[in-house]
Amino acid sequence: MPLFRIEKIVLIGAGNVATNMALAFKKKNKNIVQIYSHTERAAKILGNKIHTSYTTDLNNIVTDADLYIIAVTDSAISSVVKNIHLKNNLIVHTSGSVSMEIFKTDSSNFGVFYPLQTFTKNRCLDFDTIPVCIEANTLKNQEILSAFAKDLSKYVYVINSEKRKLLHLSAVFACNFTNYMYYIAEDILKKYDIDFDILIPLIKETANKIALNSPYNAQTGPAIRKDIQTINQHLDLLSYNDDYKKIYDLMTDNIMKMKHLT
Amino acid sequence: MPLFRIEKIVLIGAGNVATNMALAFKKKNKNIVQIYSHTERAAKILGNKIHTSYTTDLNNIVTDADLYIIAVTDSAISSVVKNIHLKNNLIVHTSGSVSMEIFKTDSSNFGVFYPLQTFTKNRCLDFDTIPVCIEANTLKNQEILSAFAKDLSKYVYVINSEKRKLLHLSAVFACNFTNYMYYIAEDILKKYDIDFDILIPLIKETANKIALNSPYNAQTGPAIRKDIQTINQHLDLLSYNDDYKKIYDLMTDNIMKMKHLT
Repeated sequence: MPLFRIEKIVLIGAGNVATNMALAFKKKNKNIVQIYSHTERAAKILGNKIHTSYTTDLNNIVTDADLYIIAVTDSAISSVVKNIHLKNNLIVHTSGSVSMEIFKTDSSNFGVFYPLQTFTKNRCLDFDTIPVCIEANTLKNQEILSAFAKDLSKYVYVINSEKRKLLHLSAVFACNFTNYMYYIAEDILKKYDIDFDILIPLIKETANKIALNSPYNAQTGPAIRKDIQTINQHLDLLSYNDDYKKIYDLMTDNIMKMKHLT
Repeated sequence: MPLFRIEKIVLIGAGNVATNMALAFKKKNKNIVQIYSHTERAAKILGNKIHTSYTTDLNNIVTDADLYIIAVTDSAISSVVKNIHLKNNLIVHTSGSVSMEIFKTDSSNFGVFYPLQTFTKNRCLDFDTIPVCIEANTLKNQEILSAFAKDLSKYVYVINSEKRKLLHLSAVFACNFTNYMYYIAEDILKKYDIDFDILIPLIKETANKIALNSPYNAQTGPAIRKDIQTINQHLDLLSYNDDYKKIYDLMTDNIMKMKHLT
């Protein structure tokens, strides 16, 4: 028997993740038949963007789609699951940190479709290279989701909820905390009217070089050289901001520990 | 009178910075006449790489070059300055955090040539796009250095020692601490045998998107959403490592503060 193929999709959500997925799906000729958002404005903008009908009422969700994708903020997933009324249609969420079990009592065909990427509304990314982590409640659903994901991305992984949560945690360090490091750098430069753009080649190379060197081997800077003079100079320069000083101190200590220098 | 043009260069150092500069200079047909390193092996490897003579003795440095570039570790600069015997030849260092004044008592033509980039020996970068910050003791030397730097890079800035130190401090956050965030992410994944490569598209996009969005606007993740449930889940997952937990806590607090959520 040939594998059931996902044709009609309903997208629940109209935020960063939903918008990026909607645009990527359209590019790949996937048929999104409806958009839902509890915010009229967001639903309308995304609906118009991809020429699809939209609703702000979960009771108006069409019930004959092949896949329902919940791409809302983590804390809103359970309320969507409880208030959406489907038969046995396949439903997934897109969260890194919410267990698949959230569907257990309300659905019989469910799973997770987690794109491991940071999404911004005004940037449409190439979905081909985004790792997609999938999980499903049955092997059949896993195969259906996997086939669907492989139409969209070259990198599809079957990963259970426990591993996915670890992956999401690691992504918080690699993306969210990293971006915060960029923010501090920008804030320091602002004090002296230096344009943040001067750091962009450095930031890009720091990211690019770990594709070839492990972060352990790629580590550079005063901490790894145990350059106490420069470290003290930096702590002096940060004397105007106790928070940044604390972060500098903690990072420096840990980088030193990493190579057993302390 | 036409500007004095730098022809013959002596490179003091054979580490990451010196190696990258040597290769970049060669590519641009700059004439490095001699390499110095206190380590015979390093001097030989780099000398052979760019087909140039090398020495491990500062007394054997040729005295007729137009520019002497000190690319050694910060703490070794002053000893090089004291032990190199030149006439009035132009001499510069390449450090972000060492003041230009280090040359003051031993030289009459001096400055700084600071490439704002992270260098790895086995990666030869395109120097064209590396910001170069220069400083010199006279306007004439500044013009000579500036013309030289512009032959190598599209982005040349005249920046004084005070600003350069700030720039270097910001680079520690944007590069060194960022790389350490990558390291923690890798270390977390190792625990569950997940390959770090799965994070590379995310890491690259995090770096790429701040060329269009400021880090302040680009911030995503549980902290900025004030998603306490996910934050607590992450702290639980980190219970095996107090250092990582402390870093997670501090970063989360500060990201919340950034948008005045606490």
